Amino acid sequence: MSFRFELLFQDPQTGARRGRLHTPHGVIETPAFMPVGTQASVKAVPQEMLEALDAQIILGNTYHLYLRPGHELIRELGGLHRFMAWPRPILTDSGGFQVFSLNQLRKMSEQGVQFRSHLDGSLHEFTPELSIDVQLALGSDIVMAFDECTPYPATPQQARASMELTLRWAERSRRRWLEADRGRAVQRGPDRQAGSEQALFGIVQGGMYPELRRECAARLVDLDLPGYALGGLSVGEPREATQETVAASLPHLPVEKPRYLMGVGTPEELVLYANQGIDMMDCVMPTRNARNGLLFTSQGRLSIKNAVHARDPRPIDESCGCPVCQRYSRAYLRHLFQSGEMLAAALNTVHNIYHYLDTMRRVRHAIELRELQTLAASDPAGNRRSACSAADSAQPESAER
Amino acid sequence: MSFRFELLFQDPQTGARRGRLHTPHGVIETPAFMPVGTQASVKAVPQEMLEALDAQIILGNTYHLYLRPGHELIRELGGLHRFMAWPRPILTDSGGFQVFSLNQLRKMSEQGVQFRSHLDGSLHEFTPELSIDVQLALGSDIVMAFDECTPYPATPQQARASMELTLRWAERSRRRWLEADRGRAVQRGPDRQAGSEQALFGIVQGGMYPELRRECAARLVDLDLPGYALGGLSVGEPREATQETVAASLPHLPVEKPRYLMGVGTPEELVLYANQGIDMMDCVMPTRNARNGLLFTSQGRLSIKNAVHARDPRPIDESCGCPVCQRYSRAYLRHLFQSGEMLAAALNTVHNIYHYLDTMRRVRHAIELRELQTLAASDPAGNRRSACSAADSAQPESAER
Repeated sequence: MSFRFELLFQDPQTGARRGRLHTPHGVIETPAFMPVGTQASVKAVPQEMLEALDAQIILGNTYHLYLRPGHELIRELGGLHRFMAWPRPILTDSGGFQVFSLNQLRKMSEQGVQFRSHLDGSLHEFTPELSIDVQLALGSDIVMAFDECTPYPATPQQARASMELTLRWAERSRRRWLEADRGRAVQRGPDRQAGSEQALFGIVQGGMYPELRRECAARLVDLDLPGYALGGLSVGEPREATQETVAASLPHLPVEKPRYLMGVGTPEELVLYANQGIDMMDCVMPTRNARNGLLFTSQGRLSIKNAVHARDPRPIDESCGCPVCQRYSRAYLRHLFQSGEMLAAALNTVHNIYHYLDTMRRVRHAIELRELQTLAASDPAGNRRSACSAADSAQPESAER
Repeated sequence: MSFRFELLFQDPQTGARRGRLHTPHGVIETPAFMPVGTQASVKAVPQEMLEALDAQIILGNTYHLYLRPGHELIRELGGLHRFMAWPRPILTDSGGFQVFSLNQLRKMSEQGVQFRSHLDGSLHEFTPELSIDVQLALGSDIVMAFDECTPYPATPQQARASMELTLRWAERSRRRWLEADRGRAVQRGPDRQAGSEQALFGIVQGGMYPELRRECAARLVDLDLPGYALGGLSVGEPREATQETVAASLPHLPVEKPRYLMGVGTPEELVLYANQGIDMMDCVMPTRNARNGLLFTSQGRLSIKNAVHARDPRPIDESCGCPVCQRYSRAYLRHLFQSGEMLAAALNTVHNIYHYLDTMRRVRHAIELRELQTLAASDPAGNRRSACSAADSAQPESAER
């Protein structure tokens, strides 16, 4: 199946969208949260559990997989899906962010970025072409253009220079992606669209400057890519700056293409941005915090190491339906954490991922209800008659997959 | 349900036994292997997976649970089964072995052993009475008498002195256990047998001296305990010494009581000892080795970190039915291990535990087949007629639980 975004509904008041991403490895109901599986593993959680939690798509990190075990090895073994035994969609980042954040000794040029491996110090260079080649070798359903993640803070001059580089790299990324796709198209016959299987997303940069964000979005839209991401956020700026930048960028992205906000955020932020019209988000927060004993609940955050939980027979969250809350008590989870048991990380992560995915299910449901209200408002006469069947079809999760 | 051992069949030639241990938390088909869950967790494996692997009983460590989170906390929360959300049987050791192996500064006396916590250096004393109290508080189905694990090597004089101490401690353990049980018996009425719920097992010591083993067994049998264990083995002695000592001890244990060989061993040793008449075994080998990347297969051992596995798409063991071998390749498991991913330990442990439990299933099946042969040989005329229905009832695993 080829890549396609289906916009089911967009709330005219808020901009919130309910959509469906069709990929070669299945459908993603949006807005969606994507758990991060840096080294071909969502840390501490087996793939069968991710399936049971109903993760629709996960992320892989191009930088890490390029260095270890290597994209050629993964290609040889049938691609990342088969390598890690994950049959559902995968998005890979471009490697740009890790090159910048994990390497003190990087060397930038127009061509690309030279860096030393954080594993063994060996010298490498990432270019837009190599990043695309690696991601195509991995077999990602969604490939990200190679960009420079503009640091924060940046002067308007720095932000513009960085944005211009990102735009030139986006063009080179697109060219490589199209070439590779044409190569495959020859093999599979003439009746397939270019870029129809592995989708390329462009990344909007521009620092915290609305005018640069607008310009970057407009020039990326000219490239007519299958999807667009907002990058360079969650890099240390105040929350208000993130929100203002997202709000300033969204109107300049095409309605019919999916929109991915990179590296965001807390459950509250997921709700906020989904309600502004973001379709996809990813963040290490649920997984990393879990390993540090920080759990998300419907009542707020909870640090499982606190002594107050030592004798507490209740689950993490009494209103949570996750397998951990169905079986284990706070007292036991605290004991595991305090004792340094590996099971602590596994169970905490399962709970946090469930909480994130469940938050998105509720968001999707809420948008569906708003669609019903909109339908009702636009057709008051038919309201009573159609509400029942519409409500049935909107029963959210059972029909989703 | 009260504790009861049902001997289904004993092979007159080899001494191998097929039995059934009834406990308050369910039935254990023997010979059985018991995975070790030191700190109320079989490291890296969630309880629901242990159930799926069909672990019938697991071990908890009294020393560790006494120090953290404390037996009174666990009692308060409803006992170890409820605390760790494990509804099946639990055996706890006496704490003696850990006091000796984890403490350089221990101080022995007739009364018990003084030691400092390996966690915070605090001073504690384990006595037979305290060990039993802790285990009863934990709610173990099988409680072990407090013993001194005779070191290896030991002179005959040292081994005798240690054995005599173990025998005196066994008497004190038994007295405390009976007192506690009588206390509970008053609450639950007069029609229940003493010691009928939480069973106490005595531990045969005596070093590698057959005569001491015989004497220790005989004197423990006089105490008429619900079961007997062979201790002080797998402590550094050569394999032949272990085997000779087991062989020398077994004839002195009562046929109608379960026999537990402590801390043994490799899959080959499980088969060996089960075929000599051992009913229960435990060992950290499958779990600890898994965390070090050493996997057990039907073709022998395999070190997953070896470069030879880097591009191998095959499962760990093509004839293994475990969930890991059903889904993941050696190449992926090697990548996880090399990348330091926590999932490596979890998946490796699941495989190794399955291999151990499956080995025991095969052993039980083999003994059942020998029972059929014995039946056939003792009644050659009825052989053809009864073989079918007997074979049906011996279909091993489906009927077991």
